[in-house]
Amino acid sequence: MLTVAPPTRLLLGPGPSPVHPRVYQAISQPVVGHLDPYFFQVNEEIRKGLQTCFGTTNEFTMVISGTGSAGMETAVTNFVEPGMKFAVFANGYFADRITEMGRRHGAQIVRLEKPWGESFTGAEAEDFISRHKPQLVAFIQAETSTGCYTPGKGICEAARKVGALTIADTVTSLGGMPVDVDAMGIDIAYSGTQKALGCPPGLAPITVGPRGVEYLRARKAPSVSWYLDLKLLLDYYEQAHRYHHTAPVSMFYALRESLAVIEEEGLPARLERHRKNHEAFVAGMESLGTAMYVAGEHRLWTLNTPRVPDGVNDLAVRKHLIAKYGIEIAGGLGPLAGKVFRIGTMGYGSSAENVSLLVDALRDAFAVAKA
Amino acid sequence: MLTVAPPTRLLLGPGPSPVHPRVYQAISQPVVGHLDPYFFQVNEEIRKGLQTCFGTTNEFTMVISGTGSAGMETAVTNFVEPGMKFAVFANGYFADRITEMGRRHGAQIVRLEKPWGESFTGAEAEDFISRHKPQLVAFIQAETSTGCYTPGKGICEAARKVGALTIADTVTSLGGMPVDVDAMGIDIAYSGTQKALGCPPGLAPITVGPRGVEYLRARKAPSVSWYLDLKLLLDYYEQAHRYHHTAPVSMFYALRESLAVIEEEGLPARLERHRKNHEAFVAGMESLGTAMYVAGEHRLWTLNTPRVPDGVNDLAVRKHLIAKYGIEIAGGLGPLAGKVFRIGTMGYGSSAENVSLLVDALRDAFAVAKA
Repeated sequence: MLTVAPPTRLLLGPGPSPVHPRVYQAISQPVVGHLDPYFFQVNEEIRKGLQTCFGTTNEFTMVISGTGSAGMETAVTNFVEPGMKFAVFANGYFADRITEMGRRHGAQIVRLEKPWGESFTGAEAEDFISRHKPQLVAFIQAETSTGCYTPGKGICEAARKVGALTIADTVTSLGGMPVDVDAMGIDIAYSGTQKALGCPPGLAPITVGPRGVEYLRARKAPSVSWYLDLKLLLDYYEQAHRYHHTAPVSMFYALRESLAVIEEEGLPARLERHRKNHEAFVAGMESLGTAMYVAGEHRLWTLNTPRVPDGVNDLAVRKHLIAKYGIEIAGGLGPLAGKVFRIGTMGYGSSAENVSLLVDALRDAFAVAKA
Repeated sequence: MLTVAPPTRLLLGPGPSPVHPRVYQAISQPVVGHLDPYFFQVNEEIRKGLQTCFGTTNEFTMVISGTGSAGMETAVTNFVEPGMKFAVFANGYFADRITEMGRRHGAQIVRLEKPWGESFTGAEAEDFISRHKPQLVAFIQAETSTGCYTPGKGICEAARKVGALTIADTVTSLGGMPVDVDAMGIDIAYSGTQKALGCPPGLAPITVGPRGVEYLRARKAPSVSWYLDLKLLLDYYEQAHRYHHTAPVSMFYALRESLAVIEEEGLPARLERHRKNHEAFVAGMESLGTAMYVAGEHRLWTLNTPRVPDGVNDLAVRKHLIAKYGIEIAGGLGPLAGKVFRIGTMGYGSSAENVSLLVDALRDAFAVAKA
């Protein structure tokens, strides 16, 4: 008799998202050693699949043995050195998190702040970066706290002019929206497995372009973190297969399978599916008289933030959805607490059926939570 | 059709070890959210199960979302501050690793060095610690590189006399040998899931005693690592359930189930099983004329290091075992490369059948690799 017996949930919050049945099958395949040739084969297949999703030819594309936040910390610990000027485009919770990580690593932080949910124009990026001349720039391509999308081309161009490297948080875009690392000119991008990739949480994909690799090679002092040291990880995964840590093999199986599912669907078709289901959800919200928090052109297709209707209690809605429908959505964070819902239409969960089910459930919940 | 199709291996190396079928079933159960009440229930059950294995009543017992090395780094980043005097009992590869992590965190390191495979007497510990008066002391209770066991009582007593905290690496002892955190007087212990707990790799159990918690509470500057910051993790797991990162839910299911399996067997019976199968393996090696590297009273029951017989090629033996029997064992690291095998009899893999299969396979392999 199994001890673990989770309730059935339809995960339509900001992640984890629903997992494809094949991925569940893959995660329970027999473990092999972390130095087994089969493990390295799986790892190579993962790297290829991730290159497609990231939109990059970067050789240096791999997986960190931790969740999305470990991916963020990997970017910071490898590319921030004490005293370095680090510019953050701050328009949400995860921008604040990378700011905090930068501070802990001794960076001198400068921030361009915008109200949560707003994006940045190319002119704003250019002005800010040319004024401060940072050595490193970070922005959140897909801000999970607000549903705002910032592709990043203007930021990366401005950064390149002053010789700064760019870090992009693509946790909620990878596999569901255009990330386009090479086309945007992003130097370092990291993500998580539990959003639009449709895999359980536990790994952080990361890619580093040639300028980033050059920086790593030239870097004198090692990163404070040994566990997330990209130079050591490179020796393990790509070159001598020198033992570093014991990779979480089962999670690698799961990610490998979810990338196979993506390859079979085709990335363009997958992105288009995310766009269509997002738009259907927005139309559904409009039919309920509920406006979206983020302006049309800046909306993520993966994570939607409809406003909490006037007179409706946010928490009561969420409780009703779980109790009656087994549907998980989330509330707002920080300044958006009580003001928006955070609703995921991503990965395996992005389907016409789920959108229609959810809109109906929200109609019911709004009525109940108003009464 | 599943893309992931691993070969069948009998994992008798230093980990990952064979996984119980129930654990594979558990890992593929439907994911719930990382803020779902069911997740926190699983987490509480894990904490209780870990307290038993660690031999502690520490409230502060939890799981880090990374592998065993992330557990080591958690201990270092939370308890090492720049300039601090950090004493390491160095008798193998993992002692060198924690030394390196300590250096990266700005510690002033002092080391008591012994040849790989030897342990430390209480008098040696007392002399070293009273001479250096460190603020923090680390030792490797179960040295996976050598098969040497250092329970730690003498070290912890000496450390307490000078007011130092102690860190113990219990990666290869937890669930297969007495760890006895409270009885030994260990302040901080971490481990991994893929050894004697019989679970896939991916999580790092950790426990912190009252003196460690007091240190954390009094600590002024935050740890350099945000991802591994125990104060923030405490807020997530134990108190307000304040969102920190998205926990790898599937891995938590796996660990929960492996702890249920341990509870059903009973820890004393489990340790006794490990002892018996280890002794049967040693007897088997003696019947092949092969001596053990570590002296009898210091041998781990989980990880055995028989010497490579004279005239036998280490690599040829390992290749033969994989090719003919699908059995994975490992060679020596560093100064022990080519001199010992590293053979795991741990977790679900510690059985009379596996020992007898392996001894027969080694007899065959020694003959082949000598020819």
